[in-house]
Amino acid sequence: MEPIRVGLLGLGVVGGGTFKVLARNAEEIARRAGRHIVATKVSARDVAKAKSRVGEAAEVVADPFQIVRDPEIDIVVELIGGDTLARELVLEAIAHGKHVVTANKALLAKHGNEIFARASEQGVMVAFEAAVAGGIPIIKAIREGLSANQIEWVAGIINGTTNFILTEMRARGLPFSEVLAEAQRLGYAEADPTFDIEGVDAAHKLTLLSSIAFGVPIRFDKAHIEGISQLAQEDIRYAEELGYRIKLLGITKARPEGIELRVHPTLIAAQRVMANVEGAMNAVMVKGDAVGATLYYGQGAGEEPTASAVVADLVDVTRLHTADPEHRVPHLAFQPDAITDRPMLSIEDITTSYYLRLAATDQPGVLADITRILADASISIVSMIQKPREDATQADIIFLTHEALERNVNAAIARIEALPTVVSTVTRLRIENLA
Amino acid sequence: MEPIRVGLLGLGVVGGGTFKVLARNAEEIARRAGRHIVATKVSARDVAKAKSRVGEAAEVVADPFQIVRDPEIDIVVELIGGDTLARELVLEAIAHGKHVVTANKALLAKHGNEIFARASEQGVMVAFEAAVAGGIPIIKAIREGLSANQIEWVAGIINGTTNFILTEMRARGLPFSEVLAEAQRLGYAEADPTFDIEGVDAAHKLTLLSSIAFGVPIRFDKAHIEGISQLAQEDIRYAEELGYRIKLLGITKARPEGIELRVHPTLIAAQRVMANVEGAMNAVMVKGDAVGATLYYGQGAGEEPTASAVVADLVDVTRLHTADPEHRVPHLAFQPDAITDRPMLSIEDITTSYYLRLAATDQPGVLADITRILADASISIVSMIQKPREDATQADIIFLTHEALERNVNAAIARIEALPTVVSTVTRLRIENLA
Repeated sequence: MEPIRVGLLGLGVVGGGTFKVLARNAEEIARRAGRHIVATKVSARDVAKAKSRVGEAAEVVADPFQIVRDPEIDIVVELIGGDTLARELVLEAIAHGKHVVTANKALLAKHGNEIFARASEQGVMVAFEAAVAGGIPIIKAIREGLSANQIEWVAGIINGTTNFILTEMRARGLPFSEVLAEAQRLGYAEADPTFDIEGVDAAHKLTLLSSIAFGVPIRFDKAHIEGISQLAQEDIRYAEELGYRIKLLGITKARPEGIELRVHPTLIAAQRVMANVEGAMNAVMVKGDAVGATLYYGQGAGEEPTASAVVADLVDVTRLHTADPEHRVPHLAFQPDAITDRPMLSIEDITTSYYLRLAATDQPGVLADITRILADASISIVSMIQKPREDATQADIIFLTHEALERNVNAAIARIEALPTVVSTVTRLRIENLA
Repeated sequence: MEPIRVGLLGLGVVGGGTFKVLARNAEEIARRAGRHIVATKVSARDVAKAKSRVGEAAEVVADPFQIVRDPEIDIVVELIGGDTLARELVLEAIAHGKHVVTANKALLAKHGNEIFARASEQGVMVAFEAAVAGGIPIIKAIREGLSANQIEWVAGIINGTTNFILTEMRARGLPFSEVLAEAQRLGYAEADPTFDIEGVDAAHKLTLLSSIAFGVPIRFDKAHIEGISQLAQEDIRYAEELGYRIKLLGITKARPEGIELRVHPTLIAAQRVMANVEGAMNAVMVKGDAVGATLYYGQGAGEEPTASAVVADLVDVTRLHTADPEHRVPHLAFQPDAITDRPMLSIEDITTSYYLRLAATDQPGVLADITRILADASISIVSMIQKPREDATQADIIFLTHEALERNVNAAIARIEALPTVVSTVTRLRIENLA
């Protein structure tokens, strides 16, 4: 059988890794795909540098549009990133009847509905395993491995930059700003780290997981996003004392009322596997009604882990393309099943447990006032600790609550902050059970 | 499109669970498979009882051969177990051009090569996700999710009975026999628990993982198998003190010299995720050359978790069957790629670190003799602890070694046991790094 001909758009970290893995493991890959998969053309901004890396093995061009319009290319791999040029290229590839494999979570979070609709009309596949959790085959696990289930929720540590920072903050007791600088020095964080530390990257990925898990359109605009830049070292210490670790968690749940979609720092009980995922590793938990809770763990980023996911998609697309040359079968394509448009819930509509920290003057009646406000809002207390502050007339008071409605917690926080005896804002972190 | 018609052989725990999940999640499953999947016929020994469970939804027969020969059945699900009748039924189904889905690890470990060869000739698929690690989609992860990789090793906690027992032994400090009795009372162990506690069940499953991971024939006869019935409470305590947990691990590695295939109690560093897999949960780690280390965790057994895997296979078989109605494409089938027959290594040829415990008379020169013997065998010591025994003239001596060749360790153990000052046999447990 003729080899499948792949065009790589971009020869950066992931493009270079993809090229390497396709070459090094060519026989293994051919055995599994049923035919050889060859990167025949590559586009790159620095053509000379790209040529020095691929040698005679592939043709190098400057213009990526040349590849997406080339009748001798079967699958286009988009590894340029961003959501403007990449969108044009992906749509053009689809219009020319080519399958697309991408690692671009930002593109799909923003334009995925349009892209999947065009692909569906054309009968071509758009695969994106590499867009979420690096080499961990999580998209495949949810779409296929757990296809017998109604998915109840998905929760993941899906950004290595922030998990590295949180691991270091806990291990070394350093403040966020110092650890961020170290992360940048070590290459775990970018010069402009905003997308990562503010939770946007995690939210892009979570949106895709949610769409695949629940068969709903991509609704990135409805994600509630909080990053880690406001996280204080004290909260990590207090959480530890109370038996918890803090992770930046992406959480999506399907409830009768609608879909939750949120990224925020989250307390997780220290004995949970998820709480012990450290450094730049990723982990995703999926709860299905038949299978129960499952967890997938591995490297969330990096040249070869991400390439592993790109090539796995190439193998899948090749196998299906070969099996079905005459007619495109939509349900085999890598689209989210865009059947139901369910309501997206506001963050105020979620119910969870909370960690609340505030500073108050240390005098009789303070606790009575605060606990009365919580009770009025139907918020029950699980535990409380009180710690003197540097100014001995003041104390830090920390509560862990039972499950409560966020709207009620917001109202209680406003009333607590209005008390004359409370001398700080209330720091609020959500707790996730994951059981 | 017409529904795919499934025949269930057996309506026990997994059969009943499969029937339930297919019914409850019928729409979700149809959306993913592209057509409905219906269990139209069921065979059971107690026909009346089966009829009361399936009602009007399916026809119940006493004779499973009726189903495998029925032209109105597309896929046969073998859930009878055992390796005699089940083998006949599976081969007959294949001979009649039907795809087979099974949860039967014992059958495939013993007769898999024959079964996959017949299936390949007939151009039908044999799927067995449910045979290994319950609902965790591990077969799919290795065969498809990690298809870009050369797999280096696979290591797994894949028997819930033994993991439950080990968890309880550690948590409660009780001896093996007492915890086994409790496990039987709670339903985690069978009346005849031999297959589980002696590691045979784990070895069946490991053999399948090895075959899929390395593309080699099934070689269950070459597996080195040690169970947990000889494990002493003291070893769990000493391991804990040295920073380790003991798990029954199935390990398979691909080395230039050949394939390792072994099941035995193993020390794992306490901070590893794998060391913290408790109770009846399963976990499998896979190391690929591109992706690095990945881990998959979830419920290893149970009615609905196993059914989740059976139905996921039904969806896969349905999708491929639909995509390729004219010609059977062998590489799409769920066969291990039986391309290379690599040597299977003897246990004596492995290299790993060891935990060694012995009792000796507490006198000068004892340590010198023992450490000399280890040095002679090229075995380096990482750490050692010595504990007085009840008889104060004697002491337990525990060594952790660096990596050594098992053949050398065996020779050293023989010489140590021959020393007049050594008053016990040497307990030897292997350590696994998993990094």
